Amino acid sequence: MTLDEQMDKIRSGAVYNDLTAELVQAREQAVFLANRYNASFGKSSAEREDILKELLGRIGSKVHFEPTLRCEFGRNIVIGNNFYANFDCVLLDGGGIEIGDDVLFGPRVGIYTANHAIDAKERAAGGCYAKPVRIGNRVWIGGGVQITPGVTIGEGSVIGAGSVVTRDVPPNVIAAGVPCRVIRAITDADRTGFQP
Amino acid sequence: MTLDEQMDKIRSGAVYNDLTAELVQAREQAVFLANRYNASFGKSSAEREDILKELLGRIGSKVHFEPTLRCEFGRNIVIGNNFYANFDCVLLDGGGIEIGDDVLFGPRVGIYTANHAIDAKERAAGGCYAKPVRIGNRVWIGGGVQITPGVTIGEGSVIGAGSVVTRDVPPNVIAAGVPCRVIRAITDADRTGFQP
Amino acid sequence: MTLDEQMDKIRSGAVYNDLTAELVQAREQAVFLANRYNASFGKSSAEREDILKELLGRIGSKVHFEPTLRCEFGRNIVIGNNFYANFDCVLLDGGGIEIGDDVLFGPRVGIYTANHAIDAKERAAGGCYAKPVRIGNRVWIGGGVQITPGVTIGEGSVIGAGSVVTRDVPPNVIAAGVPCRVIRAITDADRTGFQP
Repeated sequence: MTLDEQMDKIRSGAVYNDLTAELVQAREQAVFLANRYNASFGKSSAEREDILKELLGRIGSKVHFEPTLRCEFGRNIVIGNNFYANFDCVLLDGGGIEIGDDVLFGPRVGIYTANHAIDAKERAAGGCYAKPVRIGNRVWIGGGVQITPGVTIGEGSVIGAGSVVTRDVPPNVIAAGVPCRVIRAITDADRTGFQP
Repeated sequence: MTLDEQMDKIRSGAVYNDLTAELVQAREQAVFLANRYNASFGKSSAEREDILKELLGRIGSKVHFEPTLRCEFGRNIVIGNNFYANFDCVLLDGGGIEIGDDVLFGPRVGIYTANHAIDAKERAAGGCYAKPVRIGNRVWIGGGVQITPGVTIGEGSVIGAGSVVTRDVPPNVIAAGVPCRVIRAITDADRTGFQP
Repeated sequence: MTLDEQMDKIRSGAVYNDLTAELVQAREQAVFLANRYNASFGKSSAEREDILKELLGRIGSKVHFEPTLRCEFGRNIVIGNNFYANFDCVLLDGGGIEIGDDVLFGPRVGIYTANHAIDAKERAAGGCYAKPVRIGNRVWIGGGVQITPGVTIGEGSVIGAGSVVTRDVPPNVIAAGVPCRVIRAITDADRTGFQP
């Protein structure tokens, strides 16, 4: 199978072989491009954006990662406008990662779209399966949060620092913990009257 | 407002605009100086200390960070004597971080002094508010611990690996978990008779 | 004591002085070699393997760490064949780390074999004690997992993302959480029929 065919298979949710030459090479290419982005500090925004566009699948305007960005393939990541990720973001994007507009990531957020096979022999032979992760508009993911395959986080929600998100989170709530659970709805009482 | 006026506002606890040109530039400067520190491995202690003094607010003698140190501004961090942070420390110091004497950090400790606004519109517009974090003398923070805004950790206490500290921890206890809770007091029975 | 004598003392489980000139220098040497490995991306596998062999204690064939690898000493790490660690692995190996064959690490795994003394005065004076960590064949450690001193993880088991493993995990189970607990056994029903 070509790389594109393998990527289609991964995104279909089918069990795939994680150890093919094409996937290993695609990962190396992603490390190479991410290294270039991470080393581009101090260069012009336009130059940095060009590297991101080469690394990632499709991005809006004002997309910024503090160093050090790491991703598995990059090409399966779609990001909207006005995105900010603080230090040391890790995105394993085989299964696809979709991020909306006005999303904020704290430091050290990790999104993982692939699982290795649970059976030890299948795992050692390279068996993997993936599911997409989707982050709605205006979501804030706190520092050190990790998100596992298949999770959708609804618009406007806030995920507390250090959470491990293993199930969907509805829109407009605060959720936190290991595993992450809804703590409360966000309401008008949360407005402070802030004007920029 | 000047950068100094904005820093005063942040440290006052008032809601502030996280997206001003002055703050963005101050963050870039902190990345630049931290990069210099992280690349200074192998240079003399004096040279490394000079970079730290330029990056951080005020530090005592024998302050050491293993690579890779990251901070938001740097200037709001005060550290006492004999400080050791293991790999990959992240310090978001808008609200101020005070660290006492003889403090030890395990790898990948994260201290976050700022929250984004909970209301999604205010958050997207840059609304943030901060509270200081204070770490007492002789505290040991275990690997991967994350500390949220406003937390004080009392003298001599130990925070177990992987904890998320969301409330104050009293002096001379062992505390751990997500969220972090006191497990037990530290007593004379914990002495081993160790002599250096 | 020579460095070798100190390493023997550490691995014996006795309380040791963490602050000797020999240990500080050995840590610097490990950072230096890990930096070389981390910068060797794009070089030949043989060249990269040579650096790993210099850094680590004893390794099998096909041992790969994505960037950035960090270890305390390196020399106390033994790894079998077909090992893959995703981004940002941290190994504090004073007490010894033994990893079997066909082991997979997700991103940001941390293994810590040493504790500082619980008594604050002893801790400030450099008191530490260590215990080995052992990872069996075909284990998969999920993203962001942290493992504390003395833990053994049995063959074929899977540790869920974000877990903090403080006690032994038996073979052939899925375990997760903070602290990590067994969730269920892995059985024939987990086979998918995958063939590479």
